[in-house]
Parts: sequence; C-alpha cells; structure tokens
Amino acid sequence: MLDSTIGELKFDAQGLIPAVVQDADNGELLMVAWMNAASLKSTIETGKTHFWSRSRKKYWMKGESSGHTQTVVSISTDCDKDVLRIAVRQIGGACHTGYRSCFSWHLREDGWVEEGQKMFDPDDVYKKG
Amino acid sequence: MLDSTIGELKFDAQGLIPAVVQDADNGELLMVAWMNAASLKSTIETGKTHFWSRSRKKYWMKGESSGHTQTVVSISTDCDKDVLRIAVRQIGGACHTGYRSCFSWHLREDGWVEEGQKMFDPDDVYKKG
Repeated sequence: MLDSTIGELKFDAQGLIPAVVQDADNGELLMVAWMNAASLKSTIETGKTHFWSRSRKKYWMKGESSGHTQTVVSISTDCDKDVLRIAVRQIGGACHTGYRSCFSWHLREDGWVEEGQKMFDPDDVYKKG
Repeated sequence: MLDSTIGELKFDAQGLIPAVVQDADNGELLMVAWMNAASLKSTIETGKTHFWSRSRKKYWMKGESSGHTQTVVSISTDCDKDVLRIAVRQIGGACHTGYRSCFSWHLREDGWVEEGQKMFDPDDVYKKG
C-alpha cells in the first residue's frame, strides 16, 4: 500500500521530489530539501524527516548530527503530485546556520538582509572532529 | 542593484529557482512554482507573482486568466540561496483545480485523500474558447 502511494508521486529525472517543511503549529516555513522514494518511506515509517542530499549524495535524517530533529505531523502533496508539504514539530533550529528557519535572508532595498531567530551556535553543534 | 541582488541567487542548470508561495497572514502553503531571473524581476517590479512554466515553456503572471492574482508582501531566500519564499495576499484560489491551496491531497492510511477549501469552479473560470 505504502509503496503504491509513494509511486503515485512524480519524482524528477534524478528520482527526487522537493519537500517543503513547515511548522505544524504556526505555518512558519522552516526549510526545503529533497526526498527520494526511500527517504520518504523512512519519513513515513519513523515519523522523523529523512532527505536525500544532492551535494553529499547521501541519505540523511534531519537532526542526526545536531539533535534538531523534526517530528512529522502530516504529509500532503499538490495538484501535480510533484512537491511534498511536510508539517512538523521542530526541535531547536532547522537551519545549519543556527536559525530556526532557513529562510532568514530577506529582500530589502539594499539586497538580501540576514535576520532571524538564532536557536544555537553552529560551532557548538557541528563540532569539528 | 536589483540585477546584482537577483544574480546572487543560485538558479539551476535550466536557469530556474523554486518559489514557495505562502499566505502572508496565516502561513498557509499555497503553491510551489518556478521562476527564472526575468519572472523574479517582474514579480519584484510589479508586486504581482510571475513564474516560468516548465511544461508550457512560457512566462506567466499568476491570475492572468483566472483573475486570482497574488500581491507580494515579502520575498526571502534560504541559507543556500537556491529557493525563494514569497509571502502574498491571494485573491480567490491559488490552485487551478479550484482549491485555495494546491496542497489539498493528504496522506492517509488509504493513500492520498483530496480535501480542501474550494474557492471556485474551474469550469467557470477557465472557460474553453
């Protein structure tokens, strides 16, 4: 059943679909990342978001190194079935820069201005070995 | 100034960037569509969302045939500068199927279940010529 439900989605030529991750309570847009069929299946089965990293070519669970996991509340798709919406409860911050939301660069008269709610210091969280 | 601000974004190999369109007041995820540099520039200059249709290979203003335009409230980008967030005030429905949001297919035990707020009948709005 789950495989056929996932199979109804339109993955791109690389087998990926963008996932828009939103705070389930207040609608804040937290991040956009990519999933393949396996990471979506893990997301559904574990209730924690899993993605595919295009740059690192690696399957990852959000929060696996930072502890800032996302617990899934609901999953929806759009009229074209080619984008996912994942509503979550976020622990800590979604952004590796320390912000709660990755969308913390805002268009102003003089360009992109960084402004957001810092939840952690990335140097503390992603320690170099 | 505007061209260099747009130039800081990371467009993909096709010159496109995904734009997540959200209700400025309640955070509802309305739609995800693609912009190129020209459609983003029109969006900023006119205050109405403009996109690039990958299927029709055509530049379009949201609402140009339906009247269901989106007035831009703010534009942000993420830490990788490869996704846009556009907060808007939506007239009518964002989805060509008549729903307020394109994300009206929800994952349930028995698959994707269609459920949302219908704003219009698409047969009335997109009349065949």
